[in-house]
Amino acid sequence: MSRIVMKFGGTSVADLDRIRSVANRVKREVDAGHEVAVVVSAMAGTTNQLVAWCQALSPLHDAREYDAVVATGEQVTSGLMAIALQEIGVDARSWQGWQIPLRTDGAHGRARIEGVDGDLLIARMQQGQVPVVAGFQGVGPDNRTTTLGRGGSDTSAVALAAAVKADRCDIYTDVDGVYTTDPRIVPRARKLARIAYEEMLELASVGAKVLQTRSVELAMKERVRVQVLSSFADASGDALPGSLVVDEDEIVEKEIVAGIAYSRDEAKVTVRHVPDRPGIAAGIFGPLSEAGINVDMIVQNVSAEGSTDMTFTLSRTDLPRAQAVLADLKPSLGYSEILADQNVAKISVVGVGMRSHAGVAATMFRTLSEKSINIQVISTSEIKVSVLIGADYTELAVRALHSAYGLDAN
Amino acid sequence: MSRIVMKFGGTSVADLDRIRSVANRVKREVDAGHEVAVVVSAMAGTTNQLVAWCQALSPLHDAREYDAVVATGEQVTSGLMAIALQEIGVDARSWQGWQIPLRTDGAHGRARIEGVDGDLLIARMQQGQVPVVAGFQGVGPDNRTTTLGRGGSDTSAVALAAAVKADRCDIYTDVDGVYTTDPRIVPRARKLARIAYEEMLELASVGAKVLQTRSVELAMKERVRVQVLSSFADASGDALPGSLVVDEDEIVEKEIVAGIAYSRDEAKVTVRHVPDRPGIAAGIFGPLSEAGINVDMIVQNVSAEGSTDMTFTLSRTDLPRAQAVLADLKPSLGYSEILADQNVAKISVVGVGMRSHAGVAATMFRTLSEKSINIQVISTSEIKVSVLIGADYTELAVRALHSAYGLDAN
Repeated sequence: MSRIVMKFGGTSVADLDRIRSVANRVKREVDAGHEVAVVVSAMAGTTNQLVAWCQALSPLHDAREYDAVVATGEQVTSGLMAIALQEIGVDARSWQGWQIPLRTDGAHGRARIEGVDGDLLIARMQQGQVPVVAGFQGVGPDNRTTTLGRGGSDTSAVALAAAVKADRCDIYTDVDGVYTTDPRIVPRARKLARIAYEEMLELASVGAKVLQTRSVELAMKERVRVQVLSSFADASGDALPGSLVVDEDEIVEKEIVAGIAYSRDEAKVTVRHVPDRPGIAAGIFGPLSEAGINVDMIVQNVSAEGSTDMTFTLSRTDLPRAQAVLADLKPSLGYSEILADQNVAKISVVGVGMRSHAGVAATMFRTLSEKSINIQVISTSEIKVSVLIGADYTELAVRALHSAYGLDAN
Repeated sequence: MSRIVMKFGGTSVADLDRIRSVANRVKREVDAGHEVAVVVSAMAGTTNQLVAWCQALSPLHDAREYDAVVATGEQVTSGLMAIALQEIGVDARSWQGWQIPLRTDGAHGRARIEGVDGDLLIARMQQGQVPVVAGFQGVGPDNRTTTLGRGGSDTSAVALAAAVKADRCDIYTDVDGVYTTDPRIVPRARKLARIAYEEMLELASVGAKVLQTRSVELAMKERVRVQVLSSFADASGDALPGSLVVDEDEIVEKEIVAGIAYSRDEAKVTVRHVPDRPGIAAGIFGPLSEAGINVDMIVQNVSAEGSTDMTFTLSRTDLPRAQAVLADLKPSLGYSEILADQNVAKISVVGVGMRSHAGVAATMFRTLSEKSINIQVISTSEIKVSVLIGADYTELAVRALHSAYGLDAN
């Protein structure tokens, strides 16, 4: 007997037929003797409609009222799912954020979970009842409904799993697991049976969006075992095994490299001929940070004739604002010009195994060199090596690295 | 400066344009210096959609989950209305049943209000904020959302008005007031400036459905002054005066008769040749009551040869069930036959003034006689005289009585 939290996203509960299908999936786990809690998103399309109404009434609408409106989507699904479960003989009860309570801070529209009271839900589960929790929502310090931001239902599910001390949190989604890389680029990409929290975070942050980053951070902090699996792939009704996101200690056969990620959402900025004196990095990156711009990779060239070039990458959407900030700084910084390049991609090799294995970066550089791909910027962390290359080489680089690290399926 | 509760039904908030229009109406009252609270229904059509989903998943769905689903309609409107008010510079905040709290019993789907905590709302109103309360919903003893049954938002508004000690509860609806009779039958029907609670109750119970009966009962009990007025009739933006439902002491110039009501939803049943012995009435009406059938008018003929005829009226929809109950009773009651007639209508003359004026019934009988309309059954109460007549004579009777009591507009 296990205690399991099952989370279903908007496409999995998009209409009554799919809600019935999810109810049957839940019933299988209950019939197998497990204690089950369910977390649901809004029916696909509902949230967009509600957001559009708020926007139409007031572009700068009050986030508290936005939350009151938008949280209804999950409330509807939770009630309908409870009815669908009862109809097939499963005792079930819906729960809103304020009823549990699932407490958050007061940052409406993007609230952070502060605590989940699991006692009531545990008692119900032990009596054989399935709590159906409205995802994405909680209750703030002023007794008002809050929402967690887009994709927040993943975080709801992980927080709930921690609160009820679940053995596993199953996230049903429209992919059937986490792959060594994007299967659209590398058809021989393999589904990973297990992946470490840190690997999942690095893969998510560079573009492999299977789980919301915050949900993975929370799972890592609370040691919640998260399984990613498909809500659609079961012709027989049985769930196919997905990917388990766990502590790296749970991964016995560690691969050196778990996966190859890429991101085309990058831009490169070079500040030419900055005077090479102490404090110049702070002079550039302080103002950018104050403007809310996240800078990723940073490279400073060797000095020549008392000046240097400073190159960094950032999200492409932030580029216009970054250029504006740097233009304002020209008198104080005294650089010669700003170069911007949006035709770049970031390729990352990720794996907790590289902590204890040398040569991962060297293999990467050699592989790219063999394909005549020029590396523009390099950055490394304990479990990741990233390079910036020309965007046109993205697929070539990903395929070559996937083979070089022995990740191709047989 | 007055304190006013304004209630808007589903057609008044059916889309964003109408929500904006209602917001402007509210702003006028705020700008006039009044303290205002708003009660809203779900956008027209929303509740039907939500109910249909529950029905489709399970015809015998759990009423608690039905409530969780259906209450979202009002929640959405309350948030959108708060946003629309803020957009035009009115400080506003949405409130759900559990936040106020508006406490009800646990009869999900048709809950009764047990208490409304007005303190928080009064404090906000005194600070100039407009509470926008989701109608139709409350919170039950088990901390779950309840709904009050169809039309419950009227009752929400009256209960709220009592809780915040409002000077008036304005119910905006698709009629512009309460009339002396149905204007579709009598074009010269007059809008009543004032009508007593008891008159309103009698008119509502015989078919003039302007307000939900429970809301009038609550208004009478709590002495809430209720104004019925149109949400659409203001080309200029000004609200036209409607009808005020008040204590009869507030009606200085009492008419003897306030209005003429009719109902075609009646059926007449005659039990022929019942043995005329003590307990026979209990023997008929006890079992009908146990079957949940409400009997309205009752007449017992004089006895002849040891037997009598018992005639009564009931709602037409209950007729088949009543016939079945009576068929089962034939052996024990020993009657000869059951006669049923659905081709009947009930005409009622209503007015608190008749308490102190004789001759109201006599005028009714004479007027009908002059039109050769046969009276089948008569019943009277302190403020009402009702007769059952052939359905074909409905319009003729209503028009003749309307004139006879001097109700025609000039």
